Amino acid sequence: MTVETGNLFADVSAANAGEEIFSELLARPGLKIERIISQGQVSPPEVWYDQPWNEWVIVLNGNATLQFEDEPAKRRLSPGDYVFIPAGKRHRVEWTDPQQPTVWLAIHFE
Amino acid sequence: MTVETGNLFADVSAANAGEEIFSELLARPGLKIERIISQGQVSPPEVWYDQPWNEWVIVLNGNATLQFEDEPAKRRLSPGDYVFIPAGKRHRVEWTDPQQPTVWLAIHFE
Repeated sequence: MTVETGNLFADVSAANAGEEIFSELLARPGLKIERIISQGQVSPPEVWYDQPWNEWVIVLNGNATLQFEDEPAKRRLSPGDYVFIPAGKRHRVEWTDPQQPTVWLAIHFE
Repeated sequence: MTVETGNLFADVSAANAGEEIFSELLARPGLKIERIISQGQVSPPEVWYDQPWNEWVIVLNGNATLQFEDEPAKRRLSPGDYVFIPAGKRHRVEWTDPQQPTVWLAIHFE
């Protein structure tokens, strides 16, 4: 049997090129484990993500701010902070640190 | 809708009390996200874990060594290192750092 291995922080410095970088670490029916690297990118103005899948996400480097449509306060995420975003919960990425890569580990599931 | 949040590194220093600490961060049918804190604990001699569920696991603090029964070399895991352990792949935790907490984030799924 094969074993899929790697390091979450490998090649992180390559992120600062204008686009967020999405890397699939594991994909199975109904489950995807993904690394996302942001550096200064945010959701477009007035755009809310409304995902059909659940997402459990943790920030492991950098800093970000999430906004949920049904919450008045924004949520600041620093290393180690995790949040569960149920399917259909409208949210946007309000801010990501422009000074360093923000490394997210996201578990998407049905 | 509720949002489940926390910090993976909260209360990590409480680990050095003889037993590993297991904290369930999210549980859904067919999926469990768990934090494990080790400090010096290892699998008992000659004991192999043979799990009916798949496990994707990442070390985010500390250091550990995994041994797979069907691989001659041990695998050293340091922060950011992840490994996928398919169901039924016999393995053991050969070593965890006795000098600091080793923080694992494990995704168990069917």
